[in-house]
Amino acid sequence: MAIDQVKALTFDVFGTVVDWRTTVIREGRALGEAKGLTVDWEAFADAWRGGYGPSMNRVRTGELPWTKIDDLHRTILDVLLEKFEITGLSEEEKVHFNRVWHRLDPWADSVGGLLRLKSRFVIATLSNGDVALLTNMAKHAGLPWDCVLSAELARHYKPDPEAYRTTAGLLGVEPDEVMMVAAHPGDLNASAKVGFKTAYVDRPLERPGREKGLVAEGDFDFVAKDFHDLADQLEC
Amino acid sequence: MAIDQVKALTFDVFGTVVDWRTTVIREGRALGEAKGLTVDWEAFADAWRGGYGPSMNRVRTGELPWTKIDDLHRTILDVLLEKFEITGLSEEEKVHFNRVWHRLDPWADSVGGLLRLKSRFVIATLSNGDVALLTNMAKHAGLPWDCVLSAELARHYKPDPEAYRTTAGLLGVEPDEVMMVAAHPGDLNASAKVGFKTAYVDRPLERPGREKGLVAEGDFDFVAKDFHDLADQLEC
Repeated sequence: MAIDQVKALTFDVFGTVVDWRTTVIREGRALGEAKGLTVDWEAFADAWRGGYGPSMNRVRTGELPWTKIDDLHRTILDVLLEKFEITGLSEEEKVHFNRVWHRLDPWADSVGGLLRLKSRFVIATLSNGDVALLTNMAKHAGLPWDCVLSAELARHYKPDPEAYRTTAGLLGVEPDEVMMVAAHPGDLNASAKVGFKTAYVDRPLERPGREKGLVAEGDFDFVAKDFHDLADQLEC
Repeated sequence: MAIDQVKALTFDVFGTVVDWRTTVIREGRALGEAKGLTVDWEAFADAWRGGYGPSMNRVRTGELPWTKIDDLHRTILDVLLEKFEITGLSEEEKVHFNRVWHRLDPWADSVGGLLRLKSRFVIATLSNGDVALLTNMAKHAGLPWDCVLSAELARHYKPDPEAYRTTAGLLGVEPDEVMMVAAHPGDLNASAKVGFKTAYVDRPLERPGREKGLVAEGDFDFVAKDFHDLADQLEC
């Protein structure tokens, strides 16, 4: 792979850079203790995340007009509060809990690995999270992005091709000068279709049942164990 | 002024954060020496910058479709190369020189002041430079933006109101939760019209003939000597 041609790395964020599950469970537990609630927060976190793809698909298919992730998360949250019989939350508390997605913690290697990768490449987000969410998250987690880009700027959620093409355009480079970094094969495959290079990073702890080594060497331009391993392979 | 309400600071960049004139003159001189040219690079830099506003106005009035700053700069450059009788540049050299606007140096207080301001506020660009230019500049100059926003994302150059409104929307805040920071009263006044707070920063060295203390205390919500003075006033 002609890595010399690559000028920018774009990163999926939820699951690839940050550990959404642990953070949502932790904040859920704290909320439950404060409110005297008994809730299976692991199941709650998985259900919240599980509603995300289907919600975006309603936007992608045109059933819903363009809707920010915060609003999609809130719609799912309202259903889950009822389903898990979580009562007694004020509107302010619901708004705050919904914004847990702005406060996700990074994987242990994320900040250090990104700093290494940044020494050679422009590093940018390419997430379905919106710009405000990603900006708040970067501030919370110390993620050293060169710029914060989002499917929001294309008004097309990944894996729609517009999300990738718009991002390359905003970075001022051709699609084959960008490499997508993600823990999700579908995201990488969609980016490859518009000409991006691809780097798979394994995140076996993203959710229960996610197997380690989901992909094989050779499935993508690079297959890495974590961001430090990717930085090693890219000679950063 | 209710500064507690302000969540984000948005910055004009050319002249406010970076010293375009000194950098363009320096790179011009180096190019002239390499090519054996005698050119008044100070006049050249001023003419290049002088062509910028009128070029953007052609976009703002609809005479031109949306055009990136790189392309506007190149159109002006081509005219000036002829006017200043600068010959013998390859296309590659012209492209490189045109991108001097991606390589501008910061004012001495910019990086240190931004780091202080960043401790309390989201700090973002709100420039007529495009996202790629601003991203490359931040990498060159070490500017620690939380996110890189641009008139490009609204496809409306400042001082069109859409540029300010789109930026507040992308930051996920109301216009009156944003403060525009600029060395140019017109930019601040346009932002105030859509509800932004305003902070004027004096940059008497931006260009010859620019007077010190162009505005008076009270003309804007804050009037500062430089970014450290602004950080002092904002208790960062």
